[in-house]
Amino acid sequence: MTKGRLEAFSDGVIAIIITITILLIQVPEGEGLEALLSLLPLAVSYLVSFIMVGTHWVNHHHLLQVASHVNGKILWANLFYLFTLSFFPVTTSWVGRTHFAQLPTTVYVLISLLEFFSYVLLQQAIVHSKDCVILNQVMDESKKELITFAIEVLALICSFFTPVRWASYVLLVLGAAPWIVPDLRMSMVYEQSALYDD
Amino acid sequence: MTKGRLEAFSDGVIAIIITITILLIQVPEGEGLEALLSLLPLAVSYLVSFIMVGTHWVNHHHLLQVASHVNGKILWANLFYLFTLSFFPVTTSWVGRTHFAQLPTTVYVLISLLEFFSYVLLQQAIVHSKDCVILNQVMDESKKELITFAIEVLALICSFFTPVRWASYVLLVLGAAPWIVPDLRMSMVYEQSALYDD
Amino acid sequence: MTKGRLEAFSDGVIAIIITITILLIQVPEGEGLEALLSLLPLAVSYLVSFIMVGTHWVNHHHLLQVASHVNGKILWANLFYLFTLSFFPVTTSWVGRTHFAQLPTTVYVLISLLEFFSYVLLQQAIVHSKDCVILNQVMDESKKELITFAIEVLALICSFFTPVRWASYVLLVLGAAPWIVPDLRMSMVYEQSALYDD
Amino acid sequence: MTKGRLEAFSDGVIAIIITITILLIQVPEGEGLEALLSLLPLAVSYLVSFIMVGTHWVNHHHLLQVASHVNGKILWANLFYLFTLSFFPVTTSWVGRTHFAQLPTTVYVLISLLEFFSYVLLQQAIVHSKDCVILNQVMDESKKELITFAIEVLALICSFFTPVRWASYVLLVLGAAPWIVPDLRMSMVYEQSALYDD
Repeated sequence: MTKGRLEAFSDGVIAIIITITILLIQVPEGEGLEALLSLLPLAVSYLVSFIMVGTHWVNHHHLLQVASHVNGKILWANLFYLFTLSFFPVTTSWVGRTHFAQLPTTVYVLISLLEFFSYVLLQQAIVHSKDCVILNQVMDESKKELITFAIEVLALICSFFTPVRWASYVLLVLGAAPWIVPDLRMSMVYEQSALYDD
Repeated sequence: MTKGRLEAFSDGVIAIIITITILLIQVPEGEGLEALLSLLPLAVSYLVSFIMVGTHWVNHHHLLQVASHVNGKILWANLFYLFTLSFFPVTTSWVGRTHFAQLPTTVYVLISLLEFFSYVLLQQAIVHSKDCVILNQVMDESKKELITFAIEVLALICSFFTPVRWASYVLLVLGAAPWIVPDLRMSMVYEQSALYDD
Repeated sequence: MTKGRLEAFSDGVIAIIITITILLIQVPEGEGLEALLSLLPLAVSYLVSFIMVGTHWVNHHHLLQVASHVNGKILWANLFYLFTLSFFPVTTSWVGRTHFAQLPTTVYVLISLLEFFSYVLLQQAIVHSKDCVILNQVMDESKKELITFAIEVLALICSFFTPVRWASYVLLVLGAAPWIVPDLRMSMVYEQSALYDD
Repeated sequence: MTKGRLEAFSDGVIAIIITITILLIQVPEGEGLEALLSLLPLAVSYLVSFIMVGTHWVNHHHLLQVASHVNGKILWANLFYLFTLSFFPVTTSWVGRTHFAQLPTTVYVLISLLEFFSYVLLQQAIVHSKDCVILNQVMDESKKELITFAIEVLALICSFFTPVRWASYVLLVLGAAPWIVPDLRMSMVYEQSALYDD
């Protein structure tokens, strides 16, 4: 019951974050082609962020299906997760307006890293709330989180060197790639654990 | 179960898009009649967008009723759909502020076209997720999508010629007209397919 | 089933409208008392609008409980209702920034009138969707709508005359007063009609 | 049934309030480190407000679980609660932009006090709506509300004296601390009262 409200609140926050990012892409000043083209960097950064926030929403969606009840730890892990996610509109806009400058890129990658870290914390809180040996084992053996962390750290390093700075964004999307297809480990174990829970 | 959350998230995003558009109609500068009248073009563009986004919401509403379960393809088709929809506040505001200039009008129609295209993609994903011969047949035989596409392409052409540019907006509303009454093909087949599914 | 989504969407839009109005009360420029006091007119207009939108939400809430199913007419009446409601943030802000000047006050009252008119339209659509003789009779005999209309028209007249312009706002709140306690006619008939419907 | 809609609406408003606060942390002007560091005060005030609004959401969540039905009094107490909450984005932004100046700090604490007061009002309305002797007794004997009130009044006093002004923010977070773990009195009695209600 309380899970429904946690989902609804999270959906509300994520929906606002994803929609508000477009608002920071200001309306073109003037009616000419240059006015439109000047928004191109913002449109690119919006696309990258949309993919990342969208991937997060899809995975959050699957993660919460595993949770059978919500405790205080999950509530606060989820709030911390939404907190880190809420920086996306500002960093996206900063990156776009400065035409992917060095510091904004570094900050953008750092926020993405923090954001992924908070997701893993939430995942831990939910997985540990269930006394399911199989689920814990499957999650511990998995290398998926490590791969994404490694790719995002590489993106962070690239952000410091101007010639390969563009690679930071490619790496971020690459790091999100294993999560685009919702987490099958979860669903798999979810069905199995349902045998034990009910 | 997961369908409920997809609907809630989409409703959140569409609600924000539709409401945020009004915010881009800035508060009049000054307290006189000219200040108010200067907002007229923005009010007209807001009205057109409200009709278009409203029509989309009504149809999205009916479309998802057909879906019996949600897979990764539907999740991402829906996210792409919301992505294209999220450009409405910016293009609406651009069109209003430039008093329906040429390029803004063209961009507005292009976004509408892209948006309708993403809707048809989502429709395909949902229809194909159901192994319902009748539904697939009914949807394939239908000319409704082609008519709207044709009208919107005509709107695109009109947007390039100043004397008939106003016709672009009339055509967009016309193109939405067959969708104002929610899609009866869906409901009809929905009831029939319920006989097979349950 | 579809009613739930209509409610969720409306709640989303109303929640955004009510929250976004505060955003148009800009952050004070400076840190002194004058900076704070300069926001007083905006705070007053925000309070009036909060009462009016809040009252609308409470009544919308009760109105939809009566609806047993949702047809296309109700969907579009509801969208028109949300459309008129969406002008509140802009008119509230205009009225506050111009210190309750004449034209902004008139426009504010006109939007309130239009808004109440769209509410009555939605009420008609919902009441007529039910074949309940008692409900139709109770609603037709009621003078509640007429009283509020009369008070709001009086507010409109007052808005034209500077010495009594403040009375417009008092009258608007007065006009909302009979709706602050949710509509008992509805609940009463709702319970009765439940006897016939189920 | 109606409780669900009250929760959904409140979630929508709180989600918007919490997300919109980040928007008032403007995008850095420029791409250098100074531009980023100039946002530090805003980031700190955002963090404090996120903790406070997050704590409120968690407790609102638990409070409404106790309510078995919603009456007009609860509806309006909840609207007043959301009204006071809606000032957070503006005061947070003001405090951050003025680098925690005296008047903004005082106003921030006053809004927090008003906000907590409106929460206690809502709690009363919900507790009294249930004819549960145990619940009323437990709530009346509790000192939790008084402790938080006392700490927030102390924060108000500190806000007037520059050398200890920073303590106001520490005290506000301290005052929220007993509420970070959701209210166990509620849950405890909720389970007991369920024995009588059903």
